[in-house]
Amino acid sequence: MTFKITCELDYTVTSPLTFLLNIRAQKNARQKVLEEKFHLTPTMPHVKHADEVTGNRFDQITAQVPGIYQVRYEALVENSPEILSRKDLVDTEVHEFSLEVLACLYASRYCQSDRLGNLAAQQFGHCETPIERVLAVIAWISEHIAYVSGSTNASTSAVDSLVERQGVCRDFAHLGIAMCRAMNIPARYFTAYAHELNPPDFHACFETWVGGRWLLWDATGLASPDGVVHIGTGRDAAEVSVCTSFGNLQLERQNITCEAMDENYQKLTAEQLQQVFISHA
Amino acid sequence: MTFKITCELDYTVTSPLTFLLNIRAQKNARQKVLEEKFHLTPTMPHVKHADEVTGNRFDQITAQVPGIYQVRYEALVENSPEILSRKDLVDTEVHEFSLEVLACLYASRYCQSDRLGNLAAQQFGHCETPIERVLAVIAWISEHIAYVSGSTNASTSAVDSLVERQGVCRDFAHLGIAMCRAMNIPARYFTAYAHELNPPDFHACFETWVGGRWLLWDATGLASPDGVVHIGTGRDAAEVSVCTSFGNLQLERQNITCEAMDENYQKLTAEQLQQVFISHA
Amino acid sequence: MTFKITCELDYTVTSPLTFLLNIRAQKNARQKVLEEKFHLTPTMPHVKHADEVTGNRFDQITAQVPGIYQVRYEALVENSPEILSRKDLVDTEVHEFSLEVLACLYASRYCQSDRLGNLAAQQFGHCETPIERVLAVIAWISEHIAYVSGSTNASTSAVDSLVERQGVCRDFAHLGIAMCRAMNIPARYFTAYAHELNPPDFHACFETWVGGRWLLWDATGLASPDGVVHIGTGRDAAEVSVCTSFGNLQLERQNITCEAMDENYQKLTAEQLQQVFISHA
Amino acid sequence: MTFKITCELDYTVTSPLTFLLNIRAQKNARQKVLEEKFHLTPTMPHVKHADEVTGNRFDQITAQVPGIYQVRYEALVENSPEILSRKDLVDTEVHEFSLEVLACLYASRYCQSDRLGNLAAQQFGHCETPIERVLAVIAWISEHIAYVSGSTNASTSAVDSLVERQGVCRDFAHLGIAMCRAMNIPARYFTAYAHELNPPDFHACFETWVGGRWLLWDATGLASPDGVVHIGTGRDAAEVSVCTSFGNLQLERQNITCEAMDENYQKLTAEQLQQVFISHA
Repeated sequence: MTFKITCELDYTVTSPLTFLLNIRAQKNARQKVLEEKFHLTPTMPHVKHADEVTGNRFDQITAQVPGIYQVRYEALVENSPEILSRKDLVDTEVHEFSLEVLACLYASRYCQSDRLGNLAAQQFGHCETPIERVLAVIAWISEHIAYVSGSTNASTSAVDSLVERQGVCRDFAHLGIAMCRAMNIPARYFTAYAHELNPPDFHACFETWVGGRWLLWDATGLASPDGVVHIGTGRDAAEVSVCTSFGNLQLERQNITCEAMDENYQKLTAEQLQQVFISHA
Repeated sequence: MTFKITCELDYTVTSPLTFLLNIRAQKNARQKVLEEKFHLTPTMPHVKHADEVTGNRFDQITAQVPGIYQVRYEALVENSPEILSRKDLVDTEVHEFSLEVLACLYASRYCQSDRLGNLAAQQFGHCETPIERVLAVIAWISEHIAYVSGSTNASTSAVDSLVERQGVCRDFAHLGIAMCRAMNIPARYFTAYAHELNPPDFHACFETWVGGRWLLWDATGLASPDGVVHIGTGRDAAEVSVCTSFGNLQLERQNITCEAMDENYQKLTAEQLQQVFISHA
Repeated sequence: MTFKITCELDYTVTSPLTFLLNIRAQKNARQKVLEEKFHLTPTMPHVKHADEVTGNRFDQITAQVPGIYQVRYEALVENSPEILSRKDLVDTEVHEFSLEVLACLYASRYCQSDRLGNLAAQQFGHCETPIERVLAVIAWISEHIAYVSGSTNASTSAVDSLVERQGVCRDFAHLGIAMCRAMNIPARYFTAYAHELNPPDFHACFETWVGGRWLLWDATGLASPDGVVHIGTGRDAAEVSVCTSFGNLQLERQNITCEAMDENYQKLTAEQLQQVFISHA
Repeated sequence: MTFKITCELDYTVTSPLTFLLNIRAQKNARQKVLEEKFHLTPTMPHVKHADEVTGNRFDQITAQVPGIYQVRYEALVENSPEILSRKDLVDTEVHEFSLEVLACLYASRYCQSDRLGNLAAQQFGHCETPIERVLAVIAWISEHIAYVSGSTNASTSAVDSLVERQGVCRDFAHLGIAMCRAMNIPARYFTAYAHELNPPDFHACFETWVGGRWLLWDATGLASPDGVVHIGTGRDAAEVSVCTSFGNLQLERQNITCEAMDENYQKLTAEQLQQVFISHA
């Protein structure tokens, strides 16, 4: 499936600084960037980074002169997610995990899985398989956490959301990750462009290592896992922020769109997402 | 310099589980493992992992049968740390950092650098260069944090230590890392065997990216940066725990030794550590 | 009912300090102290305080000389708790509460009810009356929080227990209080001697203002609300610590007993405590 | 000195609820309310409470009908603060404190003094007398905490402000209280109308028990302790919120003024506040 993406970001710089953008579509085995334009005003050279393991791509911009910096990004991205059913998922155990997968079991800044072992065992311990546990986590979050715009901030973590029972996409993902890791299910965070997200914005979802694959989940239910374009994959929002600024940068305006080029594309329903699983890797 | 290490760990397993040991000396450009013995009782096959980037080495053990598991590790390790003076350290700026170095600026589970920007600017903003800032961080921690055995636990973070003004080696390292990252100085955590550490134990220290190199720091002052053998390097203790257990594992006994083979070896003094800097990478 | 209490506390003082004991049985309309002996070794004058509103009684001791301080307290206390059934509890609403009762709705150090509004509404919002809500809180805590000796410390709060799902009597009471206050049900903490508590120790429970009365609850299930002798009543443990020390005081030994003088006394069962409610005030 | 106060508050009620206003000028030995008008639109009966110990005065309003509720309060208040110099302050010690004063040593929701003992001893331990310690606390806060409107929210506590080094008047007061209590100096919070506060708003300050009196402090420096009219006195903001709502109440508009009737009134300067101390009780 092909998606058309546009991303407009206007920043004000008041004193010289470097900032790191992570807005380009990720390049990975199941996601191809067919076309891409990145334009920065004022025009100036900048450094591009690509992470070989994740496929994350960064633009490192050093703004020496105060003023308005305008970023325009357009891309045409083709995804070929793997669509799986429950019988495709052969359970794997901790002793089979690679180092890279094991690393997604560690607690991170916003996902304090080290504190949630008892809670996860209570809540999800009756589920017999990892995939059942993940489905139960998604259902629990969906039932217990209210999506409330503006209810959280940059230091809000999974534990906060668990207590206060509200948040935005980032918080839903962090809580899902923390609960999965607390049950020894590897989990990682990713940012995305999502088809017809409403209101339009960047999105955040998560992946779990189940059945020897990274399966995609959106606990907010706002996007369908087959309708997202990966941007950055990491342990949590600390690693793959859309914009990490090493100085005082002010976002003035943002405009994001993501459209499926196939007019007939329809999001998977909650019912389908009990039976059909999406993997990108 | 050559160090002789012994490490004895006895664990009780009550139900089947996997655990991940990170106790072997790291292999890196400046640290060679001359000899090594790893023995597990009961004898059984287990998985070994090595991280190519960091040189961290893991033993992944799956204990199917309840009982006592005894780990015995001995090694002879040769270090060739680089010894630097202030003039060797050419300042580098954020816009010059590689992706791998930039990743050591992100907040992590135990190092909430995202909350410490104002504090670090107040406390260390007057220092003119990164190396001065790091030296000021070490001095501040040394003056303000008391080393109190047993005062903290596995969920204690840099913010807790900052408030409660006490901790152990792990907490000193986390606080140093958090403060450095809050000033855009990349910092990472490492576990170590340390020459004549008293009382004998594993040790935790940190590294900062200053002058284009990872410099070693021990904010506790208990070890000298040229007297440590690296075990695991990571963002913080969540990544390089000596033992990460995926189930209920009980440590019953631990005995650690680390001795410099050179009888004349002397720790660097606090005064020397204002002028002489140690790098492993 | 009459209870015989003994309390032995040995403290080490290393430098001059004042400490405030709150170990005497409270005097209130439904609790009479029939006999009482308080002995301090070394013998010395000290200040006694009684709070007229709560009936809490304090011994304020100033230890000028380093050494061992031994406190011995014995009492014979007669309780006449009111035993109520559901029909005795006429619902009252916030607009009927007095200032003193309203004060037990405010968040306090260990009971962050201000953060638990959403959670309490989700979990207990379906209950139709305040008494049903309180019973549901007790049942929830009993089902979800494990009693684990030594799992918490002096700074552990209701939010911590909610996340980590374990604690001791103090933590059970704090969580119950926080959840009730979050639903506008006034709640307060009390310390107690409890009949045949096992292992013997001070106990902590809580009261809620329901039906125009303070009803007694022990979410741990270790004591029966008709089998406790009140010591101190306050917002939470910050106010009615058994010993508040203004300096470095070390508890060396503690021995507590509390026995019902009526040989036939039997604790109320969990089933009875669905139907029978105990009030002291 | 006489102050003229006006307070206009417009609230939207969407479903029936009770709310508790604490906006009337406190009546105490050194503060007389000469004239007062309180008007509620729509006109309706409501309950008035007065706390005999503190002199706090509450209006408990039950809004049965959805709509706009307008509160208008005007008052003419005469203050006769005691003006003291350092020699007037005879040091008192913990063993001399009354129960009521001792209660202002306990940790509270927003003032976790139990965690700040080490920090306070480090920072202020060199000061020889309680008054020197309080002055040092005020100076420390003034130097280290930035006043940033909108930087904090209703759950921000002293520990948060200590870490993040910013806040508003409420946060400055909470941090001052927590640090003083951590040194066994009783401290309590009060809300106030303050002469020519800019921008106009309610204000929050604190009092410490030093020299046998409650002395007034404004760590923000925005008001002068002789230019405030007390509203509510309590342990912290949890107890004396301007408006505690037991349901979903929305503040739509607020307009506050407080003017000294004496045209020649001038605020005390920071220099004078080293030598001149103000007490209301």
